[in-house]
Amino acid sequence: MGEFELLARIRERLAADGPHIRLGSGDDATITVPGGTTVTSVDALVEGVHFRRETASLRQIGRKALATALSDLAAMGAEPGEAYTVLGVPADLGEEGCLELLNGMIELARETGTSLTGGDLSRAGELFLAITVVGHAADPEALVTRAGARPGDALVLTGEIGGAAAGLYALSGPNPPADFAFMGPIATIKAKSALEGLVGRQLEPRPRLGSGQALARAGATAMIDLSDGLGADAGHLAESSEVALRIEAKAVPLAPGSAEVMRTSGRDPWQLLGGGEDYELLAALPPERLEAAAEAVRQAEGTTLTKIGEVLAGSGVEIRLPGGRFLEPEGFDQLA
Amino acid sequence: MGEFELLARIRERLAADGPHIRLGSGDDATITVPGGTTVTSVDALVEGVHFRRETASLRQIGRKALATALSDLAAMGAEPGEAYTVLGVPADLGEEGCLELLNGMIELARETGTSLTGGDLSRAGELFLAITVVGHAADPEALVTRAGARPGDALVLTGEIGGAAAGLYALSGPNPPADFAFMGPIATIKAKSALEGLVGRQLEPRPRLGSGQALARAGATAMIDLSDGLGADAGHLAESSEVALRIEAKAVPLAPGSAEVMRTSGRDPWQLLGGGEDYELLAALPPERLEAAAEAVRQAEGTTLTKIGEVLAGSGVEIRLPGGRFLEPEGFDQLA
Repeated sequence: MGEFELLARIRERLAADGPHIRLGSGDDATITVPGGTTVTSVDALVEGVHFRRETASLRQIGRKALATALSDLAAMGAEPGEAYTVLGVPADLGEEGCLELLNGMIELARETGTSLTGGDLSRAGELFLAITVVGHAADPEALVTRAGARPGDALVLTGEIGGAAAGLYALSGPNPPADFAFMGPIATIKAKSALEGLVGRQLEPRPRLGSGQALARAGATAMIDLSDGLGADAGHLAESSEVALRIEAKAVPLAPGSAEVMRTSGRDPWQLLGGGEDYELLAALPPERLEAAAEAVRQAEGTTLTKIGEVLAGSGVEIRLPGGRFLEPEGFDQLA
Repeated sequence: MGEFELLARIRERLAADGPHIRLGSGDDATITVPGGTTVTSVDALVEGVHFRRETASLRQIGRKALATALSDLAAMGAEPGEAYTVLGVPADLGEEGCLELLNGMIELARETGTSLTGGDLSRAGELFLAITVVGHAADPEALVTRAGARPGDALVLTGEIGGAAAGLYALSGPNPPADFAFMGPIATIKAKSALEGLVGRQLEPRPRLGSGQALARAGATAMIDLSDGLGADAGHLAESSEVALRIEAKAVPLAPGSAEVMRTSGRDPWQLLGGGEDYELLAALPPERLEAAAEAVRQAEGTTLTKIGEVLAGSGVEIRLPGGRFLEPEGFDQLA
């Protein structure tokens, strides 16, 4: 199959329409009529850096590439619109491999109401995916940036974190997760299910698009998605908003089983606060909006919203551990 | 320098504003207010496939990556707007190398009125660049797709072709272009200057943005940019428009010196009609619009517009060579 023929097969699977699309794939460019405000983000996943084909299926790699890009739209409170993908295709991948990557992307695109509508393909020495996502909003004021958090705001977190990092440890542990023996004494049915959940958080993260829009409507003053880890991303939000953040470590909900994975592999569970790739949302919010925001997030995605700290005047991030200890974000291992 | 620090240095150089930009680089995503119609295209350049660091400077590689992407906007007749870049950075490139790639992109962005405003960066085993460009138009009808050519239309070409292919032969010849000895008997000052021009066409192509908009306004019915070669791209236009195209090879303007490069290296100069990467525009146009269109293209970019053939009912592309021979597009070597 030549490049043109593969492109034709790919095009068959791409979205020819969407609320804003006037001309889909197959011409020199895609034509859209956005109406209102547009939000654009680009993201790259590279083999050996962001994933390994030994531990993730091609479908999962495709899904994750789109998920990480869409997570940036979630963090702005935007509605997902169009996605474009560039694939760098190594010789050993094959056409079926390309289509399998695409299937993963299309699967998540459908689940999130995104139109995967254009792309480019190139031979490459290693597998890479570069994804561009475009989101929409009525006007710029409907969106939430990293700047805007004010002293007195509550600091809130969707869902639970630490799962992706614990999943990564499990995947890269001495025994692959298919063999749960390394879990030792906790290798019960419950632990196995928890471990599968953690591996799922690592391999199939979900962008919090519904929660992001709900938080924007509920009056979030600043928002960021957790890709680099709670410590590092809280630092980005604090810097952009020119405020200080104080986080109570005990208040941070950890994914079920993640602390156990850390303990059984001889690591400090608090390191999970530095683990990346959970793609939950961290937001600042006036305290009086907290209850309504939690209800909106629950209705949007069935997800919890937890107050984990507060916004103060000053700069930097302080994470208070039990027993009066403090941890600087820089004190964490960057796990991903 | 860490990833965050390099990103900060890159952000300093990115465009914080542009006619449509409300929030530039540094947050989770870029915010724009497009107004009207948006045109989006993505393109990838991969080391060893699209360029070699031995023959192109990092500045040239950056320029070319943006140029090839912008060329797709030119082929729609769109006005350039924003550009986003993903860089895959191998260990041997270094931070200064990244900034040099960026400098090349910024140079062309400024020359074309494009705002290079966002991006992502990843470690990678090999150098790659994935570029997303966004263009603007008043409405979808102001744009020109590949479909729409009608029997009776004239087939026109901006500028001259064959330069990029001849430049590639020169660059990959037994002697590098710095040593013009392989040009043999034609290695005069004039030939040296022509050769530099050809190498320039290969390494620093210019997207025909002004000509594309001029042709759209002048009533072009279909348009495509020549990335794959005249034969192949004419085939794409014919297929999308469901027409046949007849091209008179003798009417096609070849870049000065390109035929000589072919002859001195023992190749048939007509092969240049299959050579890619010239990024000139091929368009169909009602014959009565020809004169006004040529004047508009001359005023827009000082470029020629040449009638090279016509649109007929039917399908396929026929290229008539002198002496009554015919060439099918498939008969050409794909040079790039």
